[in-house]
Amino acid sequence: MHRAAALELMLHNEIPISKAMGVRVSGYDGTSLSLAAPLAPNTNHKNTAFGGSLYSLAVLCGWGLLHLKLVETKLHLHIVIQEGSIRHLHPVEQGLHAECRIDDAAFQRFLRTLNKHGRARLSLDVVIKNGDWVAVEFTGRYVVHQ
Amino acid sequence: MHRAAALELMLHNEIPISKAMGVRVSGYDGTSLSLAAPLAPNTNHKNTAFGGSLYSLAVLCGWGLLHLKLVETKLHLHIVIQEGSIRHLHPVEQGLHAECRIDDAAFQRFLRTLNKHGRARLSLDVVIKNGDWVAVEFTGRYVVHQ
Repeated sequence: MHRAAALELMLHNEIPISKAMGVRVSGYDGTSLSLAAPLAPNTNHKNTAFGGSLYSLAVLCGWGLLHLKLVETKLHLHIVIQEGSIRHLHPVEQGLHAECRIDDAAFQRFLRTLNKHGRARLSLDVVIKNGDWVAVEFTGRYVVHQ
Repeated sequence: MHRAAALELMLHNEIPISKAMGVRVSGYDGTSLSLAAPLAPNTNHKNTAFGGSLYSLAVLCGWGLLHLKLVETKLHLHIVIQEGSIRHLHPVEQGLHAECRIDDAAFQRFLRTLNKHGRARLSLDVVIKNGDWVAVEFTGRYVVHQ
């Protein structure tokens, strides 16, 4: 959890809106990263989670997972979001919980492209649940370059 | 500008992260709404605008324009974001400026569907510029219901 704690500190220091949102790293096991945020600072006029906060948590979840995986691979490169799409299936009525899982085979292919060309793209899916239900589906296309 | 000022107050009161972002209504002429936010609270680790803040400003710009148009039509209905997609063409290096324009013919068709079914969808495009360049393209699909 050491790297995950460092990620949380980095997000708060370098992306101030993540601190205003109360983003926390709630789990990391080497293939999956979970981020959480309380509802209160991220609420909307209906007392459910604001769509912008849901997107922010999701995009940070994908970014954070890719960052941790690259750090483990001793690669300190730039990660940029190129495209993001989000689909709202249900409102999020309690705290916000995002999870992103990386497929090891896809990550190894991505690393081979990165080593060969100095640049590679990776699409990552993030889900945000409301209780046991998937409430939000996010897909982000990230570009990593030297 | 009276309605636009009321919109800014409503955003700050009911969506607290919009206040943390420093979102302002910078223009409204009946068909186009402009929102702005300073870079400092919305920065990332590269001192450009954080992707989550860009999405939030864009989704609020579409939502706000639809809200103002419905209020003018004396309709006080629920507006929900169903899907959003965002494409980053260039980094945003200064303040964030979003603009959404509504096509009058499309809005009239949308109102006819809404009157007939009590529910209708509308897609709105938002652009965010970096100086004179389009830096971000956003499309949101909003659902309005009773």
